[in-house]
Amino acid sequence: MTLSLTVSGQQFIAGRRVASGEATLPSLRAADNQPTGYRFYPASREEAAAAAVAAGQAFPIYSQTSPEVRARFLDTLADELDLLGEDFFAIAHQETALPLPRLQGERARTSHQLRMFAGLLRRGDAFGVRIDTALPARQPLPRPDLRQYLTALGPVAIFGASNFPLAFSTAGGDTASALAAGCPVVVKAHPGHMATAELTARAIARAVEKSALPAGVFNMIFGTDIGAELVRHPAIQAVGFTGSLRGGKALWQIAQQRPRPIPVFAEMSAINPLIILPQALASRAETLAKELVASFTLGCGQFCTKPGLILALRGEGFSRFTQALKDAVNPAPAQTMLNAPTLAHYEEDVRALEAHPDIQRLAGADEFISGRAQARLYQAPASLLLAQDPLLQHEVFGPLAVLVEVADEAELQSILRALQGQLTATVHAESDDGPLAQRLLPALSEKAGRVLFNGYPTGVEVCDAMVHGGPWPATTDARGTSVGTQSIERFLRPVCLQNVPAALLPPAVQDANPLNLLRLINGQWTREAVSPSVD
Amino acid sequence: MTLSLTVSGQQFIAGRRVASGEATLPSLRAADNQPTGYRFYPASREEAAAAAVAAGQAFPIYSQTSPEVRARFLDTLADELDLLGEDFFAIAHQETALPLPRLQGERARTSHQLRMFAGLLRRGDAFGVRIDTALPARQPLPRPDLRQYLTALGPVAIFGASNFPLAFSTAGGDTASALAAGCPVVVKAHPGHMATAELTARAIARAVEKSALPAGVFNMIFGTDIGAELVRHPAIQAVGFTGSLRGGKALWQIAQQRPRPIPVFAEMSAINPLIILPQALASRAETLAKELVASFTLGCGQFCTKPGLILALRGEGFSRFTQALKDAVNPAPAQTMLNAPTLAHYEEDVRALEAHPDIQRLAGADEFISGRAQARLYQAPASLLLAQDPLLQHEVFGPLAVLVEVADEAELQSILRALQGQLTATVHAESDDGPLAQRLLPALSEKAGRVLFNGYPTGVEVCDAMVHGGPWPATTDARGTSVGTQSIERFLRPVCLQNVPAALLPPAVQDANPLNLLRLINGQWTREAVSPSVD
Repeated sequence: MTLSLTVSGQQFIAGRRVASGEATLPSLRAADNQPTGYRFYPASREEAAAAAVAAGQAFPIYSQTSPEVRARFLDTLADELDLLGEDFFAIAHQETALPLPRLQGERARTSHQLRMFAGLLRRGDAFGVRIDTALPARQPLPRPDLRQYLTALGPVAIFGASNFPLAFSTAGGDTASALAAGCPVVVKAHPGHMATAELTARAIARAVEKSALPAGVFNMIFGTDIGAELVRHPAIQAVGFTGSLRGGKALWQIAQQRPRPIPVFAEMSAINPLIILPQALASRAETLAKELVASFTLGCGQFCTKPGLILALRGEGFSRFTQALKDAVNPAPAQTMLNAPTLAHYEEDVRALEAHPDIQRLAGADEFISGRAQARLYQAPASLLLAQDPLLQHEVFGPLAVLVEVADEAELQSILRALQGQLTATVHAESDDGPLAQRLLPALSEKAGRVLFNGYPTGVEVCDAMVHGGPWPATTDARGTSVGTQSIERFLRPVCLQNVPAALLPPAVQDANPLNLLRLINGQWTREAVSPSVD
Repeated sequence: MTLSLTVSGQQFIAGRRVASGEATLPSLRAADNQPTGYRFYPASREEAAAAAVAAGQAFPIYSQTSPEVRARFLDTLADELDLLGEDFFAIAHQETALPLPRLQGERARTSHQLRMFAGLLRRGDAFGVRIDTALPARQPLPRPDLRQYLTALGPVAIFGASNFPLAFSTAGGDTASALAAGCPVVVKAHPGHMATAELTARAIARAVEKSALPAGVFNMIFGTDIGAELVRHPAIQAVGFTGSLRGGKALWQIAQQRPRPIPVFAEMSAINPLIILPQALASRAETLAKELVASFTLGCGQFCTKPGLILALRGEGFSRFTQALKDAVNPAPAQTMLNAPTLAHYEEDVRALEAHPDIQRLAGADEFISGRAQARLYQAPASLLLAQDPLLQHEVFGPLAVLVEVADEAELQSILRALQGQLTATVHAESDDGPLAQRLLPALSEKAGRVLFNGYPTGVEVCDAMVHGGPWPATTDARGTSVGTQSIERFLRPVCLQNVPAALLPPAVQDANPLNLLRLINGQWTREAVSPSVD
């Protein structure tokens, strides 16, 4: 492929392309770890600071824009993404090895996501307006007029994911929800797909310009070690991150050590237990095995929601299930991973499993193939999970799962208690399994952000009801989600206006309700205008 | 006063009174720092752990109770508090020096607060239900059935405040909101009012028993250094705290260093700037001065929302205002503080202000009166605020304020940018000040959880619209409030159920909507039952 694209490799700071020093960061092909030919300038400390300052300077204007202005901007941005052509997909494929149809689907998901937030802003759900009107004659003290609404938290630093170069990266869910909330962003481009990031960033910059918004609403820097600098900058007020436990935790600790700490919403690590109850195992062992292997090897196992731990209850069907799993894993073709470091991590994790005296490989090769990842299946005793062996709680990013045979319900409940927080937990059950499933549901809801039945966790729907989150170490804040409309709440905070004169009130809390919001007024949800309360 | 009350001084663990060792913690009279005669057992590490474990064991049952069961429990608890009699107020007065009418008012506020959460549970606002029904024929992929609701976070450790022995302590807002959310609690009794805490805890224990709930729903331990042990315990999943920046930050850091970090909602420190705009100053300098001194000396200045920084714009009225402030401060009587350490801190802060070369005392004594706190007024140049001098950003807990003369709007805006996060910000303005006030509002909303006009920040209404929170160091999480119905959200997290069979769904997300909740179904807010969506 010739270098047909214009890729400057420079930082995006307040609408300008900026660089200093040398373009020492090569974009690499996933397939062979060789340069694509595009090179990027690592941001200097000064450039990282300038990007944060640019976002800070855009904040007072951007955070006060009307929801309709922001909705139109997000629609424009979605349109710009939809215009990205073959060249874009070609380079994204080179950088990530993700197949074209997958990348095209991800682009559709990403622009859908932006339009969904535009719709949310127009629907007006994200203002959280609560009004308690004055009670001047109340005894012993009058009640003042109190009006609460949600306002933007401040500039957000965003660290995209390696495995979703569109939907969880430069223009992904964190960016979309922060921009919808009224927060300017500074993206730290993922080193695994920098050319893809640059082309996406240019689409965003065009949308900012077309929308006549302050250029500092969007900024992006390149680099490998510059993220900490960004998180430390006083203008940054929150962080969105999707990636490894090690990476997320490091940024989170930096954020906590600032003179003024800030929240970090990091989606980090999960093994996504999948539990098979007795009747399900007995009645569809072979189908389950086949579907499950397809799920944990899908996209080379590079999903945050990959089911990495299979808990099957002892009983009729277990040996058929195990055999069918082996039969499906052994012929699974080796796949190219996202990049060389990801493959190296996968091989490191495989070595650790192979070296563990109590863990046994059931299927998959015992040697590595150069440059590609092969599917593997291991088995571990339940006692190891109960002992909270760290290796079993560790997410292996790649086409691998661990099977555990569970003696009975009591052991299963103990295992659930021993598990760390998860993005998802899955149950396979038939109707006779219902009572047992019901008894498991509270423990599963306590451990995971999403609990699903008779399916596989790798599809994450973009909608109102989705929770892509969960207790530590799945995320740093179990009270959030990074997918779906609710993710906007991470970047909003409540403000209460007390006895503020009507002429000064922002539209969301004005008596006449010009934005037609559903508001909680004196304890009642209504779209009506405010009428003065009678004491 | 004779020791007429039965106070055992033992821990409250799962409905039992437990103690080991010696009762070495004396309850002290605020007035003279002498023992009241009641003594308390400092909790051992084992007892702190047992309290956390008790809360953890109560969690699976309590978190699954219906909202009506929890509402009745909170009502019962409010009734028990209302039954506390003269003995209770007498010891609370001894321990805190707070006047009886104030304590009676605080009790009323505390039981009102509990009943408000009962009402919230019955209103059903706190479930946050979002349902996206299945679209089996959607292309390219079907949409599963997705149902999100909010569930209890887990057992909560609560650290009450010295200055509100009822409303922000054992049965205060953190306890009420955690219990309403379905979270069992472990309270660490404040050492400044341990007998008050014991009598309150007994009222709670009676309510737990009358409501036939697991005894571990409420636990309380005594001690001075045992809080860290509690925060470190793996059963504890969140922390509520009201107190000093030093104390809140210490617990917060401990929580972040756990193998599994947990959220800490600490309300810590604010200087609550009060800004007087030119026309307000010109037209009511004397009234403003008198009211303001009454506000910052109210209750010996021991409110989190005490206005500690007065920013008045240079102009007509400033010298009259200053003179009137002096005239009001100088005759203000010395008052007894909550306890000896609080008085010592106040005197330490006064010494630091006296020692600062650029800060000048305008009114109040230059010597200390033994055992009591005198009101003081200082003046500092605007340049000191702009230089972010730490002394001016430090909350002085006591009857003291600092006056700063501000040259013009530009300087005022710069000062607002230089300020740290605040619980409140107040503006005094007349109609001619309107345009200036409007230009200030965004910056004020950025810095404070509550912005109020033409009033004083010390009253914090308990209602839906209140925000008692704000950016660091006002709190550890600007996205929360510790007063009002919204405070329940701190102790809830979302869970999404995907394709869970109808028979297993919890009531909040069942098709028929048995709790009559307002729910977001396929993008529409409704109390209707779920009807299957048409592709």
